[in-house]
Amino acid sequence: MLGDCLENVRKNGPLVHNITNYVTVNDVANVLLACGGSPIMSDEPDDVEDITTICGGLNINIGTLNKSSIEGMFRAGRKANELGHTLLLDPVGAGASKLRTDTAVRLMDELKFTCIRGNISEIKTLALGSGTTKGVDADVADAVTEETLDSAVRFVKDFARKADAVVAITGAIDLVSDGDKCFVIRNGRPEMGRITGTGCQLSALTTAFLVANPDNRVEAAAAAVCTMGLAGEIGWSRMQEGDGNSTYRNRIIDAIYNMDKETLDKGAKYEIR
Amino acid sequence: MLGDCLENVRKNGPLVHNITNYVTVNDVANVLLACGGSPIMSDEPDDVEDITTICGGLNINIGTLNKSSIEGMFRAGRKANELGHTLLLDPVGAGASKLRTDTAVRLMDELKFTCIRGNISEIKTLALGSGTTKGVDADVADAVTEETLDSAVRFVKDFARKADAVVAITGAIDLVSDGDKCFVIRNGRPEMGRITGTGCQLSALTTAFLVANPDNRVEAAAAAVCTMGLAGEIGWSRMQEGDGNSTYRNRIIDAIYNMDKETLDKGAKYEIR
Amino acid sequence: MLGDCLENVRKNGPLVHNITNYVTVNDVANVLLACGGSPIMSDEPDDVEDITTICGGLNINIGTLNKSSIEGMFRAGRKANELGHTLLLDPVGAGASKLRTDTAVRLMDELKFTCIRGNISEIKTLALGSGTTKGVDADVADAVTEETLDSAVRFVKDFARKADAVVAITGAIDLVSDGDKCFVIRNGRPEMGRITGTGCQLSALTTAFLVANPDNRVEAAAAAVCTMGLAGEIGWSRMQEGDGNSTYRNRIIDAIYNMDKETLDKGAKYEIR
Repeated sequence: MLGDCLENVRKNGPLVHNITNYVTVNDVANVLLACGGSPIMSDEPDDVEDITTICGGLNINIGTLNKSSIEGMFRAGRKANELGHTLLLDPVGAGASKLRTDTAVRLMDELKFTCIRGNISEIKTLALGSGTTKGVDADVADAVTEETLDSAVRFVKDFARKADAVVAITGAIDLVSDGDKCFVIRNGRPEMGRITGTGCQLSALTTAFLVANPDNRVEAAAAAVCTMGLAGEIGWSRMQEGDGNSTYRNRIIDAIYNMDKETLDKGAKYEIR
Repeated sequence: MLGDCLENVRKNGPLVHNITNYVTVNDVANVLLACGGSPIMSDEPDDVEDITTICGGLNINIGTLNKSSIEGMFRAGRKANELGHTLLLDPVGAGASKLRTDTAVRLMDELKFTCIRGNISEIKTLALGSGTTKGVDADVADAVTEETLDSAVRFVKDFARKADAVVAITGAIDLVSDGDKCFVIRNGRPEMGRITGTGCQLSALTTAFLVANPDNRVEAAAAAVCTMGLAGEIGWSRMQEGDGNSTYRNRIIDAIYNMDKETLDKGAKYEIR
Repeated sequence: MLGDCLENVRKNGPLVHNITNYVTVNDVANVLLACGGSPIMSDEPDDVEDITTICGGLNINIGTLNKSSIEGMFRAGRKANELGHTLLLDPVGAGASKLRTDTAVRLMDELKFTCIRGNISEIKTLALGSGTTKGVDADVADAVTEETLDSAVRFVKDFARKADAVVAITGAIDLVSDGDKCFVIRNGRPEMGRITGTGCQLSALTTAFLVANPDNRVEAAAAAVCTMGLAGEIGWSRMQEGDGNSTYRNRIIDAIYNMDKETLDKGAKYEIR
């Protein structure tokens, strides 16, 4: 099932428009190419509408937002909505500054997202702040662990339903829900947190998976999350004496490049709640 | 011959000013260092004139253009022209958005480029749009293959003559012409298309080769194109089980770092038409 | 001693705010993660004060400065000063353009830096230009070698005293002084100059070391410089036939990831003058 989602990405070759931060943008581009998609980056307000028009999906990441790129996010997002394109939000640092929180909340309020992907703290910030998700009980712990799992699953389902979007909360355990079912995913390695940008890469990957699997959105997002986590495991297994986080970064992207349906179906570790 | 062009880069150590996109800029910097040059990046309009003055060449890449960097491109370009410096245009995405097409065409009309490097679709967009290249017959296929080669060679020669520049069209087969002769180059690997930024890297490399070989421009550009393609072949030959596009990126830059005159002269695959 | 400084970084896990250039920013982020710290990047003036407030230190690098990020540097810097945070300046390209020189000098005049790190030519530019360092005798050679060492040591001590900061001048021989003592460091490899961004990485690393060792500033900065240089030596020892500067970049960051107290204490090559 999840393997089919990957295969559809390879067949469909989705073109993904990214308005993303300049820290991890190169890895984001390479991860899209690794999974079989293609990247375009553009954040200039006068450029983004044309660019998003020729793409299948738009990945908005607020990691190094500025006044100009924020305008670009809204203009591109509205055009993507108008065209019925896949639209994903990665609210990097929501909760860490007023500008980030306000921007993420305004994006949620003015645009219709297909998917939102962040860590639990960013998603809680959105749940508390956004008009479209008011009434979500965000009284949940700041880490998803076996102990906090039940309440986190309730939270992600509730938030996904109110936001009318697929929501992916990633961390030690990853949750992906469309409000109805919730994938609880246990792929990945803790060492992935020692590489910059695995979250940004996953957001781009998820956008590509959603574009290529329009009729199975929650499965598509779950497949992207499992692909990234499994690539983290495979990449780690290829590490040699003396290797560190820079080589690990390369090995993870390499593992996505080499991932196939069978490997993903065999390696994906998830349950549905 | 081409090997001498590389050797001149190593001896001359050209300093290249890059106004380039933030996606592939790190690889652009490392590829310049790999070939024996040095990179400086600056796109702030109030900074670019001083910076380009101390450099030997300027590489303008519109991959993530914005209003401020566009102004920077014109100010730097005018200064480079004034000083007689090598000036290269990489019209990334010309044809994909109005802003990119208009900017590339305006750059062509207002500045005198030493070299223009892009894929066939970008170059066709310029040929159709620019006043300085009006009258170029751009009725050529969107890919350079053995079947379309004759018409593509006619097109690149015609465009180079009208633009009064060396033109490099890169793809499965690469063409480099000054309007008189045309190098038809068959180096490279299709897997290079699965890495972000090999085109951007080539533009920077070409700028360095042109700076170091002012009297042999078409040979210098052809040498840069062969160096990149051959590095793609050498890099691929060093790939191991499990390696993917991220590692391939490193191996290509590594191969440029280790390229010498003899390797290039032996490995360059080209004919002159 | 220096190994303890590294150990404190691993224990303390400092969060470092970086206003840095887009060329080397990904490596800067990975090097901070490699040493045990965490990176945040933000240059939007309306965002930087909130972001720097939650961090332990701020690393200002003017490598691709623009009008907006310059405003961000001042707003973030003033907030960092107000909060008593570690504040580091990397005056990339000071002396190469009027805007860079003026910006670096103004930053020096309006902010109180904990540390300034650059090459000898950048630091000389600051010494000549800044009101807070007027009277520093900058009549010193443009490279720190065994021959020019005595005058360079006098210069760095004098500049550090006038600037009331730890000053790190890096090159073939590295000098780190607080105005009183001066560490003369002989770690590193010349091939590090063939990689983009080892200086930027070192500035970020130094910021993390200073945050984690507030009571031993000159030792902390010296420890960061030794860590980077030693990582360059270890990374080089792991290079294989065919490897070049792109792989070397990865191996250096990997070596920082794997560096421990014992390795650093054993490998650090310095004398105190």
